[in-house]
Amino acid sequence: MSKAATQGAARRRGRRPGGTDTRAALVDAARAVFIEQGYDGATVRTIAARAGVDAAMVNHWFGGKEGLFAEAVLKLPFNPKDVADRLLDGDVDDIGRRIVRTFLTTWDTTGGGVFTALMRSVTSHEQAAHVLRDFLIKHIVERVLKSVGLDNLEFRATLVASQLVGMGMVRYVAQFEPLSSTDIDTMVAAVAPTIQRYITGEIT
Amino acid sequence: MSKAATQGAARRRGRRPGGTDTRAALVDAARAVFIEQGYDGATVRTIAARAGVDAAMVNHWFGGKEGLFAEAVLKLPFNPKDVADRLLDGDVDDIGRRIVRTFLTTWDTTGGGVFTALMRSVTSHEQAAHVLRDFLIKHIVERVLKSVGLDNLEFRATLVASQLVGMGMVRYVAQFEPLSSTDIDTMVAAVAPTIQRYITGEIT
Repeated sequence: MSKAATQGAARRRGRRPGGTDTRAALVDAARAVFIEQGYDGATVRTIAARAGVDAAMVNHWFGGKEGLFAEAVLKLPFNPKDVADRLLDGDVDDIGRRIVRTFLTTWDTTGGGVFTALMRSVTSHEQAAHVLRDFLIKHIVERVLKSVGLDNLEFRATLVASQLVGMGMVRYVAQFEPLSSTDIDTMVAAVAPTIQRYITGEIT
Repeated sequence: MSKAATQGAARRRGRRPGGTDTRAALVDAARAVFIEQGYDGATVRTIAARAGVDAAMVNHWFGGKEGLFAEAVLKLPFNPKDVADRLLDGDVDDIGRRIVRTFLTTWDTTGGGVFTALMRSVTSHEQAAHVLRDFLIKHIVERVLKSVGLDNLEFRATLVASQLVGMGMVRYVAQFEPLSSTDIDTMVAAVAPTIQRYITGEIT
């Protein structure tokens, strides 16, 4: 069935125009417009027009241009709020282990291809890195690290990012063995002390 | 002066056909052929023919297809042998500091664009990661880490790679602040203990 026919059928069944078809159409339109015009050049109005829906739907579904970019281009396979909740649920002296385990469980489950696609967009799409940073800082770093209340918060956060990004690059993108196929428990034992020190330890 | 005229002039002055013009022509031809045909598909014969030189020049200048790929596509801005020499020159209990300082000095000097180009080829060119791994293992890991003589050599090497790659991704590619502009001494203090533990410490 053609897309127009699908949408017609949806309307006849009374589905509102702001439904999941609209959401998918916005993601497809956004990906095309962000690639053509870059993050700064793309406007919510242009994306909505391309998708044939009202611009208000962008706020409704994605909370704005940044959230739409995160979904359409970065394709994060998790909800940052859920991740923050899970990391905050426990003793801060054990947060390094929870971070490494959560990171590996999330990306091992989605498969390395999704992480590779994210890194490809970060290395080749100038704005992707900035949006990713703003997104992670807003939803995870501010909530999680600020609750720890240490000095050098931003430096600690970027050190954590450096080890996690690198672990993902070696495990999923470059696939250097044996790290690429090492079980999660062994990875946690090896890497969690690094993350723990970056968050609560002496770093200068 | 045109390239043909330059080469003609070189020949009149008696420069041998295996000179620096040949080397540059091979790098240009290799980049094009690797992009068109992939690492496995590209042959030394095809690359040499494209450059208009004898295939023996590939071995003469690059030691083979792998070395030519490293230069043409990976564009490593250092000689791996020199790096290994520098890292081995000193106490093993201080090797973490030397590795972090050498890494940052090298890439800070060449500028982040070169590291970004390397990561882009690793994320988008299937063979790049494999050649990079073989190259690093052969020239740096085997010489440096084997001299330390610890257990779990390969796992330790990939853990070191994970922190270094991630540090480069955050500093040069994503440019997350403040890590992106933190001075090298502060970076060494923060990251060297991680590298040192991965090489000589308890990791399981």
